[in-house]
Amino acid sequence: MKKNLNEIRKNLPVTGDTVSAIMRQPVVLPPDFQVNEAIERIRQVGLPDANMNHCYVVGEDYTLLGMVSLRALLVTRGGVHLKEVMAHPFVTLQPEDDQELAAQLMQEYDLLELPVVDGDNCLTGVVTADDAMAVLQEEATEDMERMAAMMPSEKPYLESSVVRMFGSRIPWLLLLMLSAAFTGGIIAHFEDALAAQVALTAFIPMLMDTGGNCGSQSSVTVIRGLSLGEVAFSDWFRVLWKETRVSTLCALVLAVVNFLRLLLMTGVGSAVALTVSLTLAVTVVLSDLVGGLLPILAKRLGFDPAVMASPLITTVVDALSLIVYFRLASCLLGI
Amino acid sequence: MKKNLNEIRKNLPVTGDTVSAIMRQPVVLPPDFQVNEAIERIRQVGLPDANMNHCYVVGEDYTLLGMVSLRALLVTRGGVHLKEVMAHPFVTLQPEDDQELAAQLMQEYDLLELPVVDGDNCLTGVVTADDAMAVLQEEATEDMERMAAMMPSEKPYLESSVVRMFGSRIPWLLLLMLSAAFTGGIIAHFEDALAAQVALTAFIPMLMDTGGNCGSQSSVTVIRGLSLGEVAFSDWFRVLWKETRVSTLCALVLAVVNFLRLLLMTGVGSAVALTVSLTLAVTVVLSDLVGGLLPILAKRLGFDPAVMASPLITTVVDALSLIVYFRLASCLLGI
Repeated sequence: MKKNLNEIRKNLPVTGDTVSAIMRQPVVLPPDFQVNEAIERIRQVGLPDANMNHCYVVGEDYTLLGMVSLRALLVTRGGVHLKEVMAHPFVTLQPEDDQELAAQLMQEYDLLELPVVDGDNCLTGVVTADDAMAVLQEEATEDMERMAAMMPSEKPYLESSVVRMFGSRIPWLLLLMLSAAFTGGIIAHFEDALAAQVALTAFIPMLMDTGGNCGSQSSVTVIRGLSLGEVAFSDWFRVLWKETRVSTLCALVLAVVNFLRLLLMTGVGSAVALTVSLTLAVTVVLSDLVGGLLPILAKRLGFDPAVMASPLITTVVDALSLIVYFRLASCLLGI
Repeated sequence: MKKNLNEIRKNLPVTGDTVSAIMRQPVVLPPDFQVNEAIERIRQVGLPDANMNHCYVVGEDYTLLGMVSLRALLVTRGGVHLKEVMAHPFVTLQPEDDQELAAQLMQEYDLLELPVVDGDNCLTGVVTADDAMAVLQEEATEDMERMAAMMPSEKPYLESSVVRMFGSRIPWLLLLMLSAAFTGGIIAHFEDALAAQVALTAFIPMLMDTGGNCGSQSSVTVIRGLSLGEVAFSDWFRVLWKETRVSTLCALVLAVVNFLRLLLMTGVGSAVALTVSLTLAVTVVLSDLVGGLLPILAKRLGFDPAVMASPLITTVVDALSLIVYFRLASCLLGI
């Protein structure tokens, strides 16, 4: 099923690199040229790029009329006019479109080159698949870096300088370290309760890690969906509903396994086991929902959704799970 | 700088999908054909795929001799023999090569199609850039899913069933939850120390989160480097050296900021502030090294490096940081 072009354009991730930076100049010919004249012209001027396999038919002021593949030139009789043999380009780019759109459209429509036209439908260039492939790789790398709380780097790992790598990592580490102070504050707030039941402390890492893992599972899934144009802001309710069901299933299994493990393999009482397992279940559902919805919200607000991934969500989820933990503990354990 | 083909082949990530699954059948012609005979043949049989822009010259038993671009057919005089105009394919694939290799080689050499030959240099098919692009996207998605502790899914997010998504998430969640019991065991082991200094508990989330963030930064960077063929097992010492320097810089900045924050903005004494900050510094360096080296080791052992990413590393790093924390606390605080 082909998607609507406007829909793809709308769902596109916001990044700075536009199509105009990677477009190349094609061979352009008038519509009244005959096929043998076109071939003669190509012999004279050459084709600008080994990966360009069309020439472009333009009218006055470079208005794009059509494109003719080398294959069509090859198999058509010499006397035929280009306007009779040209294909009408049903997918075009604009110079200010995101480079990722070029790659998405090529994949969507199985094309290896796309013409770029301005607002008046004048041909300004052509994007070829080799450049689009490079864009796909770069964008995927950048998304992964953002998901792991780094500023995107330009260079391959072994060629990046230590100072540059430090610079791309330290801002997020600092921010997340300071925001974790908030989590610490929650624990400090419940210090008396913890002093009464030191055993509760031992489960904090498990609760926080599981919450973090659930949050990164749903956030990475949704972020990738946004990047590939499979998920849009308007799908937020479908994401909410899907994550609710998936996380409920996960929560049930994890809570039951955890409850049984605590009862059978450790010395904690059933009240503590119940407190920990209930907290786990609530944490799993909350983390999944936060992880699934924050990237969509970020996209809507014009931020890069990948920035919302695991580390930032972990901080939110840590705080939530601790609050749930201590509230449940005070209800169930009376501390 | 072009890389060596064997080097690229060797560094390639291990996945199950081979080139043979995506190759197409090209037009093949004998070397003694003239250009006008070739064009006539193409007119008769057509070209098999809109994205294939070469025909292939083969000898006996389909031995690959060369490839002729449509462009070359177009601009060459009709009487010239194909053997005089064909290019010798300097990059070829084998049917059992990984699909990702096809995409990497196309990018490396700026090609939009690559011939596939068997061990006897017989042509078995051709891979085109549109298929290679799809492979790149799928592989990047799979890597991201594995990094976020999920089994790779085949379908777009909104089309995946709830049960299937549950199935791809729950195994890792269970495994990681149970392994976090180990971390809990460490805390339980030091319960008496914690009871004496409950304030120490409040810093556990910050220490664990920062360690986890550092580990995911270095692991994601290295995993992506491995995927793109930029990093190989033989680079392990360079990775070790680079991560040591980057993490030492990060550790210094984080520890100093944290020490000052604890002294100036909280009520903890300087001994506790020192204990927490030293633990932080050691955790940052350890996490970075574990994150950078585990994926390389996994690759060497034939596992997918992406599986080694953040969540698994988090569990290791949690345990390490807690042990360091309690050891330092017992030295510096005498508990």
